[in-house]
Amino acid sequence: MSKFLKARYCSLEVYTPGEQPRDKKYIKLNTNESPFPPSEGVIKAVNENEVRDLRLYSDPTANALKAALADLHGVRPENIFLSNGSDDILNFSFMAFTEKGAMFPEISYGFYEVFAELHGIDYVKVPLKSDFSVDPEDYTGDGKMVVIANPNAPTGLCLSVNDIEGILKANPKSVVVIDEAYVDFGGQSCYPLINKYKNLLVVQTFSKSRSMAGARLGFAIADEELISDLERIKYSTNPYNINRLTMAAGVAAVKDNDYYMENCQKIIENRDYTTRELEALGFYVIPSKANFIFAKSDKIGGEELYLKLKDNGILVRHFTKEAIKDFNRITIGSKAEMEAFIKATKQILEDIK
Amino acid sequence: MSKFLKARYCSLEVYTPGEQPRDKKYIKLNTNESPFPPSEGVIKAVNENEVRDLRLYSDPTANALKAALADLHGVRPENIFLSNGSDDILNFSFMAFTEKGAMFPEISYGFYEVFAELHGIDYVKVPLKSDFSVDPEDYTGDGKMVVIANPNAPTGLCLSVNDIEGILKANPKSVVVIDEAYVDFGGQSCYPLINKYKNLLVVQTFSKSRSMAGARLGFAIADEELISDLERIKYSTNPYNINRLTMAAGVAAVKDNDYYMENCQKIIENRDYTTRELEALGFYVIPSKANFIFAKSDKIGGEELYLKLKDNGILVRHFTKEAIKDFNRITIGSKAEMEAFIKATKQILEDIK
Repeated sequence: MSKFLKARYCSLEVYTPGEQPRDKKYIKLNTNESPFPPSEGVIKAVNENEVRDLRLYSDPTANALKAALADLHGVRPENIFLSNGSDDILNFSFMAFTEKGAMFPEISYGFYEVFAELHGIDYVKVPLKSDFSVDPEDYTGDGKMVVIANPNAPTGLCLSVNDIEGILKANPKSVVVIDEAYVDFGGQSCYPLINKYKNLLVVQTFSKSRSMAGARLGFAIADEELISDLERIKYSTNPYNINRLTMAAGVAAVKDNDYYMENCQKIIENRDYTTRELEALGFYVIPSKANFIFAKSDKIGGEELYLKLKDNGILVRHFTKEAIKDFNRITIGSKAEMEAFIKATKQILEDIK
Repeated sequence: MSKFLKARYCSLEVYTPGEQPRDKKYIKLNTNESPFPPSEGVIKAVNENEVRDLRLYSDPTANALKAALADLHGVRPENIFLSNGSDDILNFSFMAFTEKGAMFPEISYGFYEVFAELHGIDYVKVPLKSDFSVDPEDYTGDGKMVVIANPNAPTGLCLSVNDIEGILKANPKSVVVIDEAYVDFGGQSCYPLINKYKNLLVVQTFSKSRSMAGARLGFAIADEELISDLERIKYSTNPYNINRLTMAAGVAAVKDNDYYMENCQKIIENRDYTTRELEALGFYVIPSKANFIFAKSDKIGGEELYLKLKDNGILVRHFTKEAIKDFNRITIGSKAEMEAFIKATKQILEDIK
């Protein structure tokens, strides 16, 4: 840290991304990436001609991609906002809509607290219920922006659209951000409610179900006034922040929607398989609607299992926070990857007997 | 604008990117893009295998690209910061180093004022001299972060490394940001001074001389403490913000440095040609070290020329600010593009005689 850094940033606890060790080839079940490559349409869209055109800026209005997404969701292009990943959109939301602060579940995506701290926002962390679920009744507004990951991370638990509507009704004076990064794996999106609730901001990403984590593309669906607020922040920071190739890939990915939805079905099957196998090994697995599961065993500590799996070339995500330190978050990969994970876990449990 | 937007953002005047009309094919001399495609190495680096790997996040540490850039500049990887374009880095700098405010030239890159307004930073706009040059003597610090585009935009005028060193000496208590977006077109980079001045932050981009505007890649060179401050902000906003393909392209572009430096020579030749031709037509052209020139004529108003060129299928950038409204900023493209520009300009002057 330099002596020039603004005092308010000196104590920031930054977000810790999942580790990416390079010492050997790992089975990566730690950052919720997709085991499937992008669709053939995406692969064709990122062609040599497009690479030659990298000399040109991307279209800051992103009109082609907005139109494609609007068409897919049956909304208007004015209801779509695009930026460099959903983190970017969440960050802008924390900047834009927090005049009276923010509230979000105590155990959720770790970045919410980082954004709040970064921007000096007054925030409340709402405890989960004892079963780790979000109680919609807890989010009755005093004007604070409400942020709910649905499904929640790292639990995978999901609220119904009815529950979300309850939160919207209870918070007419503040924006309710529903972070649907994982919604395509069994949850139900609440975006149709944007027509009824001007305070609803639905955030989604191409990183998980659409196999484009490395491409950096997130989008929001909301009433056009909220969208124009986000555009205002984007045009005050980095209006060109989506790569040209990503823009072309995004349009192709929307066209190939069926491919991605089939992949989501495969993930759901692999999730069911992994859950069953872990339960057979005595694990407690929280019922997940995401592309990961959150599981613990009373035979082995969370950190110990994580470390032993790493020794075996398998990365899962372990969080040190007290309330969840017994658990690991395991990304659902291909069937072969999950079989390898189950096999290694079995062996680890055998070895410590 | 929604009723939910934080009051301080309601009056923001956002940055206006150069227009990108789609009604017909234009000769684009309005956003300082390169007329040359990325190098063959870059085109090879963005291959099908890399596109398939878009399912994975990029390396947030960007180690490979930091190493390549460090090697090129004879500094250590710890002296390099990477982000989604130099705008991103400038934005982070305005967040990080402005405890006592910021100062920058009154006529310069329009985004500086936008960043300052966005973050509620106290700032001073320092008038240029009557010849539009920056007077280094004006930047004597009271702790405000100093930001100088060198060469300056939209004038193209350049300070010497000695001048920059003077500013660094006069501002030991604040960060001096030198925005070298255009330095490869005839200016001299001041980055070797980072070893002597811990308050120097040099910002460069792959958008102009390296033909990658659409890829979104900027970098900074500075003492490692300043770099770690910027990493702290990045890890509190969007740590994965560089596209995987861009990361690979960046490494290849650094290897192909000779190609890009040859292209810069061609731009310099085309700039000299365009300057001579405009002067022959009676234009006043500010001597430029950038990939654009700033020119006016007493035979035709700035806006009128801009509009007539647009009618002729040629886009240049016109700014409405009073002090510079007689000028246009003309990006230097290929020889053929500049010949077409000169021919059209000649015809426009003929027609209004």
